[in-house]
Amino acid sequence: MAVNLTVPEKIHPVRGVLVGTACAGIKQTERDDIALFCFDEGSVVAGVYTQSHFAAAPVSIAKENEATSSCWIVNSGNANAATGNQGEADARRTCSILGDRLSRSDKAIQPFSTGVIGEFLPMDRIESAIDEAVSIMAPNVWEQAAKAIMTTDTLPKLVSSQVYLDDQLITFTGIAKGSGMIRPDMATMLAFIASDIAVERTVLKGLIEEVSEMSFNRITVDGDTSTNDCFMVACTGAAEMSPITDRTDSRYGEMRTVLSDHAKTLAQSIVRDGEGATKFVSVVVDGGANEQECLAVAYSIAESPLVKTALFAGDPNWGRFCMAIGKAPIEDVDTSLIELRLDDLLVAKAGMLSESYAEAEGAKVLGQKEFSVKINLGRGDASTEIWTTDLSYDYVKINAEYRT
Amino acid sequence: MAVNLTVPEKIHPVRGVLVGTACAGIKQTERDDIALFCFDEGSVVAGVYTQSHFAAAPVSIAKENEATSSCWIVNSGNANAATGNQGEADARRTCSILGDRLSRSDKAIQPFSTGVIGEFLPMDRIESAIDEAVSIMAPNVWEQAAKAIMTTDTLPKLVSSQVYLDDQLITFTGIAKGSGMIRPDMATMLAFIASDIAVERTVLKGLIEEVSEMSFNRITVDGDTSTNDCFMVACTGAAEMSPITDRTDSRYGEMRTVLSDHAKTLAQSIVRDGEGATKFVSVVVDGGANEQECLAVAYSIAESPLVKTALFAGDPNWGRFCMAIGKAPIEDVDTSLIELRLDDLLVAKAGMLSESYAEAEGAKVLGQKEFSVKINLGRGDASTEIWTTDLSYDYVKINAEYRT
Repeated sequence: MAVNLTVPEKIHPVRGVLVGTACAGIKQTERDDIALFCFDEGSVVAGVYTQSHFAAAPVSIAKENEATSSCWIVNSGNANAATGNQGEADARRTCSILGDRLSRSDKAIQPFSTGVIGEFLPMDRIESAIDEAVSIMAPNVWEQAAKAIMTTDTLPKLVSSQVYLDDQLITFTGIAKGSGMIRPDMATMLAFIASDIAVERTVLKGLIEEVSEMSFNRITVDGDTSTNDCFMVACTGAAEMSPITDRTDSRYGEMRTVLSDHAKTLAQSIVRDGEGATKFVSVVVDGGANEQECLAVAYSIAESPLVKTALFAGDPNWGRFCMAIGKAPIEDVDTSLIELRLDDLLVAKAGMLSESYAEAEGAKVLGQKEFSVKINLGRGDASTEIWTTDLSYDYVKINAEYRT
Repeated sequence: MAVNLTVPEKIHPVRGVLVGTACAGIKQTERDDIALFCFDEGSVVAGVYTQSHFAAAPVSIAKENEATSSCWIVNSGNANAATGNQGEADARRTCSILGDRLSRSDKAIQPFSTGVIGEFLPMDRIESAIDEAVSIMAPNVWEQAAKAIMTTDTLPKLVSSQVYLDDQLITFTGIAKGSGMIRPDMATMLAFIASDIAVERTVLKGLIEEVSEMSFNRITVDGDTSTNDCFMVACTGAAEMSPITDRTDSRYGEMRTVLSDHAKTLAQSIVRDGEGATKFVSVVVDGGANEQECLAVAYSIAESPLVKTALFAGDPNWGRFCMAIGKAPIEDVDTSLIELRLDDLLVAKAGMLSESYAEAEGAKVLGQKEFSVKINLGRGDASTEIWTTDLSYDYVKINAEYRT
């Protein structure tokens, strides 16, 4: 059951983008598991990719083809990771099949996969599904695509908005998937955003690295990093505007705001639909000497099984937060300076329980579906915020039964 | 339900050691929650202690009093951690009460606590319990003591053995507790070993640092590091032998062997009785460039929730092992060199599934209560081994309901 996760009322199609889906029966036989995104000539594409040593074959090829990309193909149900030379050959063949059907170079295709690790793709069925998806491509198939890329997700994740730039109505629409194996490492889960804005690729590339750092790289469900994480943005330039060519352009700021908002919303959607999630929790650390140590404390809290089970129970067992701060890999902590709040309720300071704190108040905060755990380290001005979930019976159930 | 955890047939009392227990009703009203260990004059004591920033008040005082120690007092049910000045005062008062009853200096007493974090000790009831425990002290109360220090443990953890040195029969007997919040950081959980061997304190201190590194610092249940970990050894010298004064003494080697074995057995006992544990799993990493990277890979596997839920399910979902290796914080990994084995069954090599591997064979290994996950990194001669458990429904149950 996802926590406060909704689908936007209106999904705006993006000028210059066609989307298609089909069922290749990769894992289940019933539902779509292939999604295609095809961009008009002149589009620019940029992405950030997983840092896993075991990065999947499609990730390597997507990186290789980024500069010449005008098409994405995504399959769910099989990650094509840890599949060796065969996996690489399969990913390349996917590109050449789709390139052939669209009369584009193989180099114009970026492949993405998500699902079980260590199994080979059913290439024959994928070939037929590509034919079908190409045949039905249309501008307004985003919601079907968001569903086609789901694995253990319970709901599709979409964002869509429009803003005026140079008197042009510019559209941004995007989707993401992800529910478990979520601790993106300097990259993200599968997330795709398209816009008809006109922008140079180098500017876009710099922007999405910055944006992913503040969105997808600030979430954790289980501390496990996928072999297949990617965050991709395509800008078709179909809007009648001169391209944004540098960061001093005033329109760049607006683009940055919209993309940041969308990336953050998609990242938070992944957490809201985290495996077994019953709570959506912001962990805010401030008063740090630098951002690095704020992040270390935030992740130590967000990934502690004892904290996460207490969040699940709605139990304000604040000693577990102290434990998690205590084990964070940072130097020379003075616990007498640390303050702990649940939302705005002061729980502990000076290394112990605050005199004003009443446990019933703490239980009230943790009884909510959505709240903040706030730590002030009391030794500087740096701060950070990350988002996470609790650890429930359902997390164990989902992952103990995933392949059975 | 603990995994293959047994109590030794015979618990040998240790010459020069008296043990007593009592019930202070700290958390429950029924069972003993105080244990005392009193050593004859001339005993030497050494320990290693938690590295947590939030180290509990008793830990600081135990460190302070180590060189002059001849008595341990342990309470369960309350960790006296994150309790500020009041917590420190309570721990010091515990020392002075017991020192008074035994006619010893406060400095001869080392206090230890384990249980809920962030609450104050009930000092009046502890004072009465100390009187009672002192009044019944006797040589053969080790098993009661092992029970008195339990919290979420389901079984007491003991070791006991005798060896001949200088024609003297030397005894080593020890106990430990621990079940959750188990990822000791350069120190250990609560573990206590006593012997009548004669040894200089500096020699003992060096030895137990080395021993703890290969035993208590090689276990993880949930990756969470306690605020109260301590591993203590007392040697009374009651045996008629000249003291061991340096490491070149041939008797030092024998003492090292026995202590290492006991520490490893107690450490593994903690894992066997890990919260919700249904499996006892050794993670062996070899072929590393250095031990540090072997440990990084081993812990990345042992602490991954996705690996742990697969272990619980008995599902040889080997892609999750790849994922965990992939996210380990080490440099320049060449996945084509990596081999994965479950016990002696070759599962994957060259970055993908081995042709000889049959999933039914993998399921057979993971169906056992006890097995090894073996990784060869293929790039050096370093190796390590750590011990861990699975992540089960009961882990969530125990920790979501711990205080309720």
